[in-house]
Amino acid sequence: MTYRAPLIDMLLSLHHGAGLLAAAEAGHYNDYDADMTAAVIEEAGRFAADRLAPLNRVGDQTGVTLADGHVTTPPGWADAYRTWAEAGWNGISSPESFGGQGLPLAVHAICNEIWSAANISFGLCPLLTSGAIEALAAHGSEALRTRYLPHLVAGTWTGTMQLTEPQAGSDVGALRTRAEKQPDGSYRLFGSKIFITYGDHDMTENIVHLVLARLPGAPAGTRGITLFLVPKFLVNEDGSLGARNDIVASGIEHKLGMHASPTCTMSLGDHGGAVGYLIGEENKGMACMFTMMNQARLNVGIEGVGIADRAFQQALAYAQERKQGRAVGKGGEGSDPIIVHPDVKRNLLLMRSMTAAARTICYATAVAIDLSHGAVDEKVRAAAHARAALLTPLAKAFSTDIANEVAALGVQVHGGMGFIEETGAAQYVRDARILTIYEGTNGIQSIDLVMRKLGADKGAALRDLLDELSGIVAKVEASNDPAFGATGAVLREALGAVTRASEWLLEKIVSAPNDALAGATPYLRLLSTATGGCLLAREALAARDDDAFRDQAAGHVLLTRFFAENLAVQAQALERSVTGGADSINNADAALT
Amino acid sequence: MTYRAPLIDMLLSLHHGAGLLAAAEAGHYNDYDADMTAAVIEEAGRFAADRLAPLNRVGDQTGVTLADGHVTTPPGWADAYRTWAEAGWNGISSPESFGGQGLPLAVHAICNEIWSAANISFGLCPLLTSGAIEALAAHGSEALRTRYLPHLVAGTWTGTMQLTEPQAGSDVGALRTRAEKQPDGSYRLFGSKIFITYGDHDMTENIVHLVLARLPGAPAGTRGITLFLVPKFLVNEDGSLGARNDIVASGIEHKLGMHASPTCTMSLGDHGGAVGYLIGEENKGMACMFTMMNQARLNVGIEGVGIADRAFQQALAYAQERKQGRAVGKGGEGSDPIIVHPDVKRNLLLMRSMTAAARTICYATAVAIDLSHGAVDEKVRAAAHARAALLTPLAKAFSTDIANEVAALGVQVHGGMGFIEETGAAQYVRDARILTIYEGTNGIQSIDLVMRKLGADKGAALRDLLDELSGIVAKVEASNDPAFGATGAVLREALGAVTRASEWLLEKIVSAPNDALAGATPYLRLLSTATGGCLLAREALAARDDDAFRDQAAGHVLLTRFFAENLAVQAQALERSVTGGADSINNADAALT
Repeated sequence: MTYRAPLIDMLLSLHHGAGLLAAAEAGHYNDYDADMTAAVIEEAGRFAADRLAPLNRVGDQTGVTLADGHVTTPPGWADAYRTWAEAGWNGISSPESFGGQGLPLAVHAICNEIWSAANISFGLCPLLTSGAIEALAAHGSEALRTRYLPHLVAGTWTGTMQLTEPQAGSDVGALRTRAEKQPDGSYRLFGSKIFITYGDHDMTENIVHLVLARLPGAPAGTRGITLFLVPKFLVNEDGSLGARNDIVASGIEHKLGMHASPTCTMSLGDHGGAVGYLIGEENKGMACMFTMMNQARLNVGIEGVGIADRAFQQALAYAQERKQGRAVGKGGEGSDPIIVHPDVKRNLLLMRSMTAAARTICYATAVAIDLSHGAVDEKVRAAAHARAALLTPLAKAFSTDIANEVAALGVQVHGGMGFIEETGAAQYVRDARILTIYEGTNGIQSIDLVMRKLGADKGAALRDLLDELSGIVAKVEASNDPAFGATGAVLREALGAVTRASEWLLEKIVSAPNDALAGATPYLRLLSTATGGCLLAREALAARDDDAFRDQAAGHVLLTRFFAENLAVQAQALERSVTGGADSINNADAALT
Repeated sequence: MTYRAPLIDMLLSLHHGAGLLAAAEAGHYNDYDADMTAAVIEEAGRFAADRLAPLNRVGDQTGVTLADGHVTTPPGWADAYRTWAEAGWNGISSPESFGGQGLPLAVHAICNEIWSAANISFGLCPLLTSGAIEALAAHGSEALRTRYLPHLVAGTWTGTMQLTEPQAGSDVGALRTRAEKQPDGSYRLFGSKIFITYGDHDMTENIVHLVLARLPGAPAGTRGITLFLVPKFLVNEDGSLGARNDIVASGIEHKLGMHASPTCTMSLGDHGGAVGYLIGEENKGMACMFTMMNQARLNVGIEGVGIADRAFQQALAYAQERKQGRAVGKGGEGSDPIIVHPDVKRNLLLMRSMTAAARTICYATAVAIDLSHGAVDEKVRAAAHARAALLTPLAKAFSTDIANEVAALGVQVHGGMGFIEETGAAQYVRDARILTIYEGTNGIQSIDLVMRKLGADKGAALRDLLDELSGIVAKVEASNDPAFGATGAVLREALGAVTRASEWLLEKIVSAPNDALAGATPYLRLLSTATGGCLLAREALAARDDDAFRDQAAGHVLLTRFFAENLAVQAQALERSVTGGADSINNADAALT
């Protein structure tokens, strides 16, 4: 089956769950146009269903090939990409001054969910380009920006991010690729990089590689890393393409999933040195990378939401169609669709509610990033910046964790058919598996949350979030609506668990950092579950009062209730893992021999 | 890396966690020889490491092929199988009267774990043969047993189980393959079957298919199903092979994993009818299947334990080798193996402790099956039968659920390398994915647990189990040993949660079966977690007092503590999902449109 973008769910999540309309009403979302958003995502959904979804399976089966340094993408891929770029999808949130459409990042995030859901291997390419655009726009010289940004924004050239080397994965500071300054002010790069997404392909004329390297005599570790722009083809003064640069794909990986997305080993400087241009300052490459990290990590979270929704849609359709057994209490011959069985229903509700919670966290992160740039007063911008920083690891790790869980449930709903590749459900499992790893493993996200984000400003960003969530819970409680079941009480308890776990961590970060680190992963899950549950509740409450969503209100109350009573109830257990698990981890070496 | 059977862990689990030694001391395990067990599993481990593990990857990459009805297994497969069978591994728990070795099923279970860990696609074939042996031994006529059992026990012929048809998966009663009685007392079968494991292969001369079919005029549903023995080659009076029978593999599936295990579509009767022989009575085929169901389901659980342990071993080795970053609090240059990072340690402890808990549940199930046949008095046999029935769905579903979780964690520990097929970690994810589905999906297991096993004899088997587990917790509490941390308190709470959830379910099974069904999956997890935690504690306590395991005692106490403080703490949340989740599931149709 194809993919249908859940437009109403998306708008409800964006406008109410993520709080965009409230921010717009407060004047912080310059001339936000809800109708425009609806039109844009509807068109994106149509393009995705018509052009991208049909290529998802062929991409998986055919994969990519490498010959003589040239990567060939699957049949139909290059054509679809060019049509997509020509329609203007690449630059929808890029500055209008460089040819973009200047729409909010939050709207771009929905489009990214749509591309990922339809065809995650395809959708990954522009995410890398987005990262290159952001780094270049923030740190590139005027000359580099003028020459490269319009092509990147238009999508006529794509971008890559080149950090990883065999000995430098999570530990970026260990990288060895070296750069030497030339008399003309350019640099020559030598070394090799691995795991470079879309490091080569045949969809565009040129590729703009952003490469981290080390200058002679640079300090060890992350303080001695510099960012360079290294084009596949050099660009002449007049903007035409010049010589082939000395950076080539020398290998591609055979992966569990994402078969249509080339993952390249790149060789730089085998023939005299790859020509590179400095971005930002020498030895300040990590700062340039940090600029784009929130958005890049959010985008991976969005990929998780997309593939989870795709898996859900397919499982739901299967469960409505496939007949096995009889509903309990129903007599007579024949059989019923398996969706009548409570255990199947439970799996589908897990899938849908986890996806909805992750979506709302991701969109809320996007809104916070938007506000951090665009809000009318500095105080709101600063608070939004802190909120975005806090939510980013949740958006990345929670969404991709649940993407794997949801994809696995999707296979389960299909029974034996789920294990057969032709069904398609298994591809989501394979594709989703990388999401918890790249752009910082989810363990790294949890550590970032606890050690950097939670502790920043003594927990101010967290307190601000908890205040907001507590207000939502108060509204659920005040509604006195039996349809919410135990939602109010469960979410109230969950916020209490977050508060206690956070206080414990804030103390341990200082006094016993290894204890704080041991609890990082369950803490991220705890905070995500509480946040997701509360934001879902805000959606459900708002749907009743907004004509655009009133028909969906009952369904969203049920979804919120299911999430609370079946998932948010885990809050205390997670709290105990955070605050009580450290000893059992840090002193357990005898159990790991 | 290769696989090393964890012999000491296995013996500790079998002798103490699963309670074999106590049963033997009480006289119920006829002349049990612990040294013999140790020697057998050591030799199995050697064979697995030398012959089976090296074929695991080539099997995955090469897969199987079908041409003209003949399935070809991967290179080396047939030779390895024959060597394995010649060494007598196939019949180690089969009756000596048919050429088996008559060892306990519990010892056979350990061997099955070893084959599965080394090469799960290979190990699956003899599991099917075991099922055929069991059904035939229990229900076959003297003539059929004499003719077929010696070959099946020796492994010179293999067995299949043919239930599934396109419209008859979980709903076996919907099958349509028909059988017609012939004047000579044999039958002719017509129809087709799907998802038939090792339905054809080139490892043995003959294959003994056990096929469920329907006789003319048989009652609808499961009451009208009959079991037949349908050999690939007919067998002459003198035991020599005769004509090719009219049952052929007409297709093989392209699957997510288990590539080396052929999953066949079988066509019966395209050329006049497949010759079949009645097993048991007409229309009593389901009863014959039930005979072997406990053991077959246990074997799938054992597969889960095996693959989980394999994934753990590989992840542990990687984490000990791969260097990234510096341990917190350690200064200077250089980097440490990633196992120093608490979050990595946590993942490895999750893997090991979940595997150990599942292993102990599986071995305890095997011991209960052994006792149900072999205990010296009828009362013990009856109690063991009820215990085996109760534990079987836990052994199957919990072990295979955690196998998927453990395999996924294994990829995570490998970081980006985990997504690359060459690493091998991803194969475990792919292979494990079927385990929660075949031999009754884990949803079916949960339903079986709640609707059949829990309710049997008004919960007597459960009470008996809880009494035993409570005694273990009392010993942990009485030990007053700080090394156990909160283990005693957490497990005590978990047993309380089981008790309350069970009482609620026992009432709902009668008054509101759909409510009971909605809570079945979290209940199975709850009971498994409580049972696994307590049995791990029994191992840890016993290790201190048994010279054979004293060196492992400290490690097992740590493992038990980790399991309790990080996993068993979820008991109350699971209880709430059981008792509070039904409304949010059974009235949630508006959230699933």
